[in-house]
Amino acid sequence: MLTFHSERTKKRDAMTELDGGRLVRPFECPERVDIIIDRVRATDLGEIRAPEEYGLDPVLAIHDAGYVHFLERAWDDWSAAGMEGEAIPTIWPTRRMRGDVIPDTIAGEIGYYALAAETSLCAGTFEAAQASTDIALSALDHVMATGNPAFGLCRPPGHHAAVDQYGGYCFFNNAAIAAQRALDRGAAKVAVLDIDFHHGNGTQDIFYDRDDVLFVSLHGDPRQEFPFFLGHADETGTGAGRGFNVNYPLPSGTGYADWSETLDEAIARVHRYQPDLLIVSVGVDTFEHDPISSFRLISEDFTDIGRRLRRAGMPTLFLMEGGYAIAEIGINTVNLLSGFDSA
Amino acid sequence: MLTFHSERTKKRDAMTELDGGRLVRPFECPERVDIIIDRVRATDLGEIRAPEEYGLDPVLAIHDAGYVHFLERAWDDWSAAGMEGEAIPTIWPTRRMRGDVIPDTIAGEIGYYALAAETSLCAGTFEAAQASTDIALSALDHVMATGNPAFGLCRPPGHHAAVDQYGGYCFFNNAAIAAQRALDRGAAKVAVLDIDFHHGNGTQDIFYDRDDVLFVSLHGDPRQEFPFFLGHADETGTGAGRGFNVNYPLPSGTGYADWSETLDEAIARVHRYQPDLLIVSVGVDTFEHDPISSFRLISEDFTDIGRRLRRAGMPTLFLMEGGYAIAEIGINTVNLLSGFDSA
Ligand SMILES: [Zn+2]
Ligand SMILES: [Zn+2]
Repeated sequence: MLTFHSERTKKRDAMTELDGGRLVRPFECPERVDIIIDRVRATDLGEIRAPEEYGLDPVLAIHDAGYVHFLERAWDDWSAAGMEGEAIPTIWPTRRMRGDVIPDTIAGEIGYYALAAETSLCAGTFEAAQASTDIALSALDHVMATGNPAFGLCRPPGHHAAVDQYGGYCFFNNAAIAAQRALDRGAAKVAVLDIDFHHGNGTQDIFYDRDDVLFVSLHGDPRQEFPFFLGHADETGTGAGRGFNVNYPLPSGTGYADWSETLDEAIARVHRYQPDLLIVSVGVDTFEHDPISSFRLISEDFTDIGRRLRRAGMPTLFLMEGGYAIAEIGINTVNLLSGFDSA
Repeated sequence: MLTFHSERTKKRDAMTELDGGRLVRPFECPERVDIIIDRVRATDLGEIRAPEEYGLDPVLAIHDAGYVHFLERAWDDWSAAGMEGEAIPTIWPTRRMRGDVIPDTIAGEIGYYALAAETSLCAGTFEAAQASTDIALSALDHVMATGNPAFGLCRPPGHHAAVDQYGGYCFFNNAAIAAQRALDRGAAKVAVLDIDFHHGNGTQDIFYDRDDVLFVSLHGDPRQEFPFFLGHADETGTGAGRGFNVNYPLPSGTGYADWSETLDEAIARVHRYQPDLLIVSVGVDTFEHDPISSFRLISEDFTDIGRRLRRAGMPTLFLMEGGYAIAEIGINTVNLLSGFDSA
């Protein structure tokens, strides 16, 4: 299948991630893309194409304008305020703190627009986030034009980005932005199947009250795992969206036997929905050696995931999300894609 | 006047504060107490006494039991989880994230119970917070027994600590805990006047629906200053508490002319309330050289504040909150107290 890729995704190269009370080099780093592209080439997965540029309109169709504008200027404002490190929030409007008055100053604004603090803002973040969205949209347009599958090698990932909040390494929700464009270009129904280790809280947030996008996610139980405050099984949608949000939280240590059984259940749910397009949020942080996750999939399992997804028989767009076992990220990702192609 | 002091407050000696995207040594450090005590001695302000121990009952009269228990075990749980730095939250339940399911694991729990991330949890924090509360309560009992003023040299401070959240260097809300004990011991009405540079969001939170505690605060406008998400003028209380919460947000750069005019207004409001006891949350971070604040009071102004407070003519308990210009913290704090004594 075709891969969409851009070197512009590497414009985000943050120095710091807040982890276990220390500032470490981010797990979500530019080399992730290099290693996947190397593997795409080595395995002859298919042609690698550069994305088109789509501008901010498709982003603004999903995200709050104040949020997008904030991300655009955040690094400049932070630097201008004389901060010496990368931009990390230190306070946020929880519980009885007020969320109806947005502060004027960057130290307050960043707490308003963040849902997590591991993700430092730095120079180049906005440009990389736009490149990542361009990749998703270019891959989408290919699938819609040809009916063939495509892989958008998005980076930074997107599934944690909510309507007006960034975090979990995500800024623009690529899967949601692509789903909306598919609907705008004539699809009646789109399913997003999120198989990243972490719950796709952002995608759920964006479509929670809608029935034209089905969101289905397999992930580590939020009682024990990031993002902790969303992803429970009883979150099934609201209003028109009731029944169109499906969460499968799974315990720490889950291996492929249990995981793949749940995947089949998820695929069956997608199938009953009869979407015009399936978007797969591909995370390979379900891998046994992922440094920040706790499932136990092995590299061969990803090939099998690809086969099972192919048997679902739908036009399919793959968009990259997480995966932090750098050495194996190329193998695991391309195993999934070539498992799909070869099935 | 009498000062209540304990070396146990120094059991909290955190290594890290998240500030401007870096981890720096905390502004709220143990030496603050040494410098104030040295000045109390040098000026013969009065006797220095050790506090009694009150246990956790008075703390549990104000704070959520789950929160208190979390603070008691947080450092052990964090260390046991193999974290290498001090305990700092990286995610929190804002907006449409869920606040009704508390995670099982420390990395999630800490985000549930924190309202800010500058305040690392470390060994000794819980013990120091208890010592700080013992100081406040011992000073309170002296004021109630004698009618004479007293100074509780509390550390860590308390006014940012809400019913079930820590942050802003605060864990137990000493002023609120003392106010509740005063009520429990026979006072009908207590006023808390908060003159720290920062809004006392915790104290406001705790008494927002009550008319037996009047809360009045002068502080930097939350549009520009910590805690950013509380402290606006339109927050006047709710239910029975309607009209018993009074905020005076003041602009960056405020000097003593404007500040003292507002103080007089605040004192007049307290006076109309006719409390049995006035608790003053004493922050000296209104000082012109404070490293994290933006008002312009000079050292002599604090003497004048003490005089104005004395003229209010009420039984008065002083409890230490903020102040981070270490070199002058003793002078400014004791100026206020001796201004009161000498008026
Ligand atoms: Zn993930
Ligand atoms: Zn303060």
